[in-house]
Parts: sequence; structure tokens; C-alpha cells
Amino acid sequence: MTHENELINQNLSVINLGINDFIKPLLLSGANVTNIQWEPPAEGNSELGRKLAELTYTEKWSKKIDEANEKAVKNIISSQPLLIDLKPAREALGLDQHTFLHAGPPISYNDMCGPMQGAAIGAMIFEGLADSPETAIKKLKANEIRFEPCHHHSAVGPMAGLISPSMWLFEVKDNTFGNIVYSNIMEGPPKTLHFGVYDEFVINRLRWMAKVLAPTLKKVISETGPIDLREIIAQAIHMGDDCHNRNFAATLILFRQLVTRMIKLKLEIKVIREITDFIAGINFFFLNLSMAACKAMLDSALEIPFSSIVTAMCRNGVEFGIRVSGTGDQWFTAPANPPKGVYFPGYSEKEAALDMGDSAITETAGIGGFVMGNAPAIAGSAGGSAKDAAINTENMGKITIGRNPNFTLPFFDFEGAPVGIDTRLVLETGICPIINTGIAHKNPNVGQVGAGIVTAPMGCFKKAINALFESFK
Amino acid sequence: MTHENELINQNLSVINLGINDFIKPLLLSGANVTNIQWEPPAEGNSELGRKLAELTYTEKWSKKIDEANEKAVKNIISSQPLLIDLKPAREALGLDQHTFLHAGPPISYNDMCGPMQGAAIGAMIFEGLADSPETAIKKLKANEIRFEPCHHHSAVGPMAGLISPSMWLFEVKDNTFGNIVYSNIMEGPPKTLHFGVYDEFVINRLRWMAKVLAPTLKKVISETGPIDLREIIAQAIHMGDDCHNRNFAATLILFRQLVTRMIKLKLEIKVIREITDFIAGINFFFLNLSMAACKAMLDSALEIPFSSIVTAMCRNGVEFGIRVSGTGDQWFTAPANPPKGVYFPGYSEKEAALDMGDSAITETAGIGGFVMGNAPAIAGSAGGSAKDAAINTENMGKITIGRNPNFTLPFFDFEGAPVGIDTRLVLETGICPIINTGIAHKNPNVGQVGAGIVTAPMGCFKKAINALFESFK
Repeated sequence: MTHENELINQNLSVINLGINDFIKPLLLSGANVTNIQWEPPAEGNSELGRKLAELTYTEKWSKKIDEANEKAVKNIISSQPLLIDLKPAREALGLDQHTFLHAGPPISYNDMCGPMQGAAIGAMIFEGLADSPETAIKKLKANEIRFEPCHHHSAVGPMAGLISPSMWLFEVKDNTFGNIVYSNIMEGPPKTLHFGVYDEFVINRLRWMAKVLAPTLKKVISETGPIDLREIIAQAIHMGDDCHNRNFAATLILFRQLVTRMIKLKLEIKVIREITDFIAGINFFFLNLSMAACKAMLDSALEIPFSSIVTAMCRNGVEFGIRVSGTGDQWFTAPANPPKGVYFPGYSEKEAALDMGDSAITETAGIGGFVMGNAPAIAGSAGGSAKDAAINTENMGKITIGRNPNFTLPFFDFEGAPVGIDTRLVLETGICPIINTGIAHKNPNVGQVGAGIVTAPMGCFKKAINALFESFK
Repeated sequence: MTHENELINQNLSVINLGINDFIKPLLLSGANVTNIQWEPPAEGNSELGRKLAELTYTEKWSKKIDEANEKAVKNIISSQPLLIDLKPAREALGLDQHTFLHAGPPISYNDMCGPMQGAAIGAMIFEGLADSPETAIKKLKANEIRFEPCHHHSAVGPMAGLISPSMWLFEVKDNTFGNIVYSNIMEGPPKTLHFGVYDEFVINRLRWMAKVLAPTLKKVISETGPIDLREIIAQAIHMGDDCHNRNFAATLILFRQLVTRMIKLKLEIKVIREITDFIAGINFFFLNLSMAACKAMLDSALEIPFSSIVTAMCRNGVEFGIRVSGTGDQWFTAPANPPKGVYFPGYSEKEAALDMGDSAITETAGIGGFVMGNAPAIAGSAGGSAKDAAINTENMGKITIGRNPNFTLPFFDFEGAPVGIDTRLVLETGICPIINTGIAHKNPNVGQVGAGIVTAPMGCFKKAINALFESFK
């Protein structure tokens, strides 16, 4: 038999690189196809690719950027967020009566998705600015309330992220660099304002939180000292939390600290009972503190000239927005993606709102989806395998430039969590940051319908690279 | 070049099977050697091998044994251990004033290792039977105290496992089959009777535990209902506990349950404070409950005719002992192994006692070392890698016949923990059960010096197979 015949007669085995359209005809012809996912950098956009190459490989910029990025990551790792106080938003942020904050990049009431509008309606009632949803909607539509992003006030909030002046906030201080940040307080199941519900139960609980919970916790912290959030996150990661969609261990550790402190103080036993029962009923309670801790860490890396490190990722349910250290407070936005996940009985993707919330600050700081490989209980609840989760964590290592020695991953032999998303690496690899997330119903006043995984849209990173390039010229 | 020359001139690659002595000369001659660990069944003992084969592969026995084993594992899986009460050992077990219990198979005072003798000395002082260590030692040497294994009284205790009449015990009931078992109560750092320390601090704490802690917890359980230990273990495994050497998550979950219940009752705030501070200071507090839960599970599989499933593994610091379902209360013993592990600063293997304690009941029930692959934080603290830990869990699957759907392992895509050690499989594979363990100083009154891993000695399983074979004849 000649060599030519051998080649023709043997089974065809093909390695396909990058272009998925080739696979089908090959498979139909009976070939074994090994497909290698590959895309040219910058999604094949040659102009952007040239800019990326200039920012990454030319002497002109690359060294400056690398050095700035190293500084940014060093700061993030060095920061030590502590819970130091609780205050009403009015006092903490100087909010006037007609300013509400929301998650994600800027958006007006009329452009908001259903659940964020729902949260705004609830806040109107909570603040006494409306006595019914109908009145609230009328006033909101008439732009009687000014909406601003939480991030414009050094604050973060999960899902709708709605903060109104009378809501109390956690005050978190980075003990290393002194930055102060805020988050609202987790409400807990079954229905919450942050998932867009404004019924009586939700409003009454918000009132109890402002009247009993928050002032008591303020007293506890002021009389017994700050709580080290970095330490809690580190321990919780060792217990399979990602500190975004799973906060069970972190909440248990926090609960133990808060309760032993409360019992030491001469508090009314009724108040202790109400608060312990409340926190004991919310395995998610720590989330807002995890977010504030991550925001505090990232604020240590704000506005470092030349740095291409991402300092914020957030979503308002319509758009996904990122900020990059070297471009300061500019937002780079793109349409928010729909999450993929596991839905509660009776719900499906059809009812889901798009990706929403400031909670992607956890991934920005290198936890959440970035440590999913160490938190397989959450991979399972989002429908993935432990191996999928490990691959996600490995992939996040390809778009980050550092490892956080304070957040070690037992399943990766105590390697640090991947930290410091370099905008350039996202474009070069085509790998977008992965985010663990809750999923809200697209309509107001329904609530959570599932949990899953979503990616940050590439569009944000493309805009950021363009802006970085332009700013350096 | 001829084929012969090709063979001689090419690099030598060898697969070596079983006999390690062959490797060195091969390596010296420049060969690549792939070594496959393999031993003939029953360690190459042909008589025992024949018995094993008869019990495993002949129609005469294998079906009966398989069926009995399936029943044993079904019972273990079906049992639901609940914490239902606390009682003094005198009342719970009917112990007279001169009977003490100890961990492991039977042993007399004079044959005990140092730390177990230390615990006995402490118990003498605690019980008021001696006013000094010297008097205690004199009386103990004169055999004034009768020593019996905890396992002879449906009880378990970690390390020395010393239970004296005035010590309080947890009472755990298997809600499915009704078995009642007991364990003593975790003392907590830094020094403990169970690690052989008998100083004033340890004795005073035991007195407080008997006077305040245990009676209060008894009141809490009796007034607020049982605590589901199976549920806590299941959740804790999802949080990286092995529930033997790591009980951090389980303790946090238990703490939350106990504290919310205590606060509901009209207890003195001073008592609540003492107890919350005590439990909050011991990340190991749940261990004794985990052990009692595992003992209760395994007691549902006791004395099933023909079953070769192991129902207990324990160690007295000198000998390792196992019991097998089909041979009832017989002990099969062999010299205890020295643990391999990580030592506290200033200590090494030289100072270590041999393997000790009833805590291997956790591995017998399919958790502890058997789920190490899902608890990598502990693998790290014992000096191993996450991959080593995963291999250990996989190996334990080779000597067990079931998977426990109540204890699922997120890192193995929610596969159940390996459960039901078949004595036959241990001999056939040569794989001995692996155990996570604390390490005591070999002398009395020193305490813990490290933590690590140890294996059950093959000798126990060989004796058990012989006994099973003889009992069937």
C-alpha cells in the first residue's frame, strides 16, 4: 500500500483551532475532531489588537503599566478591611431626602429593570415619601428622586443595591490605607428589597433593621472593637465559601463573634434574642460585609496612573460597568449578560432579569467566582461540576497578575486566590471574568428566582483598553 | 540496523510490579521505571489467602456475606443520630465509684501508655479518690480501679477516652433503630485530660463542666428538643470538615443552635456567657458528638450474622482493636502504629505516643480520614497535598462497599462518603483504613504535640478474617 493510500484510507483525525464552523462538516465526514477554543486577541479587531499590543509589548508603555499594576495588586493584598461602625446613610454619606443610590453604573429610574424599580418603590414607602406603590411609581416617573450609583459614594449593595437616606449602613475601614467604605445590611429570606420586593413584610423588616438591629450592632462594635473582615473571609474560604454566592461559613463565624460580644454587654435579652434569631436565619448575612471588605481592598488601588487593573465591576440590571485604576472614575459599560443557572421550581430563564448588583466587587477583588474551584458546594448548586469550578478558577489565574497570600485555597494546595484583573489580559486571552450571582425575577415585587454564573461582557474591557490607550497618547 | 540492535540500543523502559527491590538496579542501569504498587492478597500468606478466597468467591459463603454486608451498610446509612440528653456517667452507664472507662480495646493500668495513665491520674483527683498525683498513681498501680473499654458500655471518648463516674456524657439516640450511645464532652485547649494532662487547670475545668456546662445543656436539650447530628455532619462536610480532626464548621453550626436555644430559655445571663465563651473557644467542640453519632450509626450494624463489615476501630495507645459485625463483641488487635504528621514547635516523632483514642469510630462510619479528599484544609495541616487527600478518599472507596447519600462530598461532585469497611476487601487490596488523628506526648501530663495521619494495622484484619472463617465452619 502506498503512503498516499494509507493517508486516505485511515481514519481522519483533525485538530480544529478557533473556528467552530469547521467542526460540523468534519464530524459529518466521520472524522475525530479535537476542538481547541482559540480566538485572536481583542476578538480579532485589528485596530484594538494593535493598541493592545502597544500597551502590552512595547517598551513605551508596558513597563510603566506593569509597575503600576504591581503596585495596585500590592495595595489590594495589603489592605485589611475592618468593620468599625454602623451609621444611617444620611449621616454616613450625607444623602439628602431625595437622593437614592443603586447598584451598577449610572441609570435613571425610567431605564431601570423591573426589580430595581421595585426596590426604588419599596424605598419610597420605607422613607415615607409615598403611602402606596402607585404614588411611589408616579413620583419616581416624575423624577422626584435623584438616583446615583453606590460606587459614586464609596458604597456597594447587592442586586438592586438600593440605599435610601434612612437605611443603616456598615462602615468598613481599610486599616492599612485608611479608606472608608459602606454597604447596606443583608435583609434575609424569603423576600427582600434588594431582589425588588416592596411588600409590607419587607418594609416592616427594613424598619426593624433601622430601629433595632443596626443601632444595637453599632453599640456592640463601638463597645467591643472592630471586626476583622479579612480574617473571616480567609477562614470562610477554607470552609468552601466563595464569599459571594455562598457565605454560610463566614456568617457562622461572624455570628459567633457578634453573639459572644452581645452577651458580654448589658443588652436587653429581648433584643439579643431578636438579633440572634434574625442573623441565625440568614446564611447569607455576611455577603454585604464581604462586598464592603472587597470594595475597601480595591479602593486602595484607585487611580494609580498607567494601571490597567480593574477596580470595580458592577451591574444595574441593564448595563455592566467596570472601572480601571489608570482611568479613574470613568465607567466602561456594555449590555449586561443573562445569568446561566439553576432556577427555583416554577421559574426559568424566561422570567430572569439580566445580571444585576454591586456584588461583582467580590470577583474584582479575587474571591467569588474566582475561587469557585475551592467552593464546589456552590458549583453544584449552580449546576456545574467540581472540575468545571476548578477550571474557572484556573482561567481566572490567566487574567490576573497576582495571588493573594491572605486568601489561600486548600484545594489548590493553599495557593493564593487569583487577584488583580489586568484589562490587557482579558483582551489578550479572550477570557472574561466569571461571576457567581443570584438571579432576580425581571418584574418588580417578585424576588429571587434562582442562582448561577455569569460573565462580564468583553465590550467593557475593549472600551477600557481604548480609553487607556487614548489617555497615554 | 537489525531489530535486535534496536532493542538493545534504545532506552530501557520498565514496568515493575510489586517487588520494590528490583527498582534500584534498574534505575542504576539508566532505565525509566514505572513502579506499580502491588501485593498479593492477604499479604502473600497462602493459608489466609485461601480462606479469604473462600469467603469472597465461593458460593458457599460469598452470597451470605454479601447480603449480610448490604444489610449492615443499609442500617448504617439509615440511622439518624440525635443528641437527646446529657447525664453523669454514673447514671447513664451505671458505673460504680471504682470503675473507669478508657479508649480502645481492653488494657490494664500498668500496661497503658503515658498519656492514658495521665488521664487516669487526673480522673482519680477529679473523683476525689486521690488528693495528689502520687497517691493516685499508688492506688492505680495497686489495681484499686477497674478499667473497661468505653466500647463495652456503648460509649466512646477521644484520645485517652477516660470516663469516670462523675463526668457528664452526651446521650445520643439513633432515631431509626433506637440505639443509645454516649460520649464524654470536649474539654478544649490548651490542655486536656484526654491528652493525658492532670494539672489544676484541667481538673477545675472538668468540675465546671460537670457543675455548670453539662446540667445547663441538659436543660436546653430537654426544653427545646433533640439536635440532629447527622444534619450537622452533612452540612459540615460541605464546609470542609472531616468531623474527626477538623470540626470547625460543625462546631459553628452547633454553637448557633445551642446559643439561639439558650437565649430563648430564661437562663442566668452569667451562665449563658460562660457557656458561649467556652464553646466559642473550642473549634473542636463537636468532635465528641461526631464520635457518638458515628458510634450510634455503627451500632445499627452490630452482630449481623455473616457480615464482614467493621463495626468499630479504636486504639488504647498500645494496641489497635477492631470489631466486625459477624463476630460480635470479639476484639481483633495488633500493635498500634505511630502517626505521621506535623508536630508543634519543639516536638517530634520521638516524643509521640502511639495511635490512641476511640475517635477512629468516625473513619469506621465513613467520615474522618475517609472524606479527607473533601477536607483539604486538614490535609495541609497534616502535611499532605490536596491530591494526596483525594487519593486517600479514593482508596477508601476500594475497601468499602457503599456510599452514604446523607454525607455527600462536593469535591467529588456530591458522591456519597465511602462507607462500610469490608474486612475481606482490606485483605484483598492490602489497603488499610486511613485515620486522621491528634498526637499525644508519650509521657503523662504533657498533652498534644501534633496532628497527622495513621493507618489501621493489617494484623487486626487478618485475625478478623481467620475468626470469620472459623466461625462459619
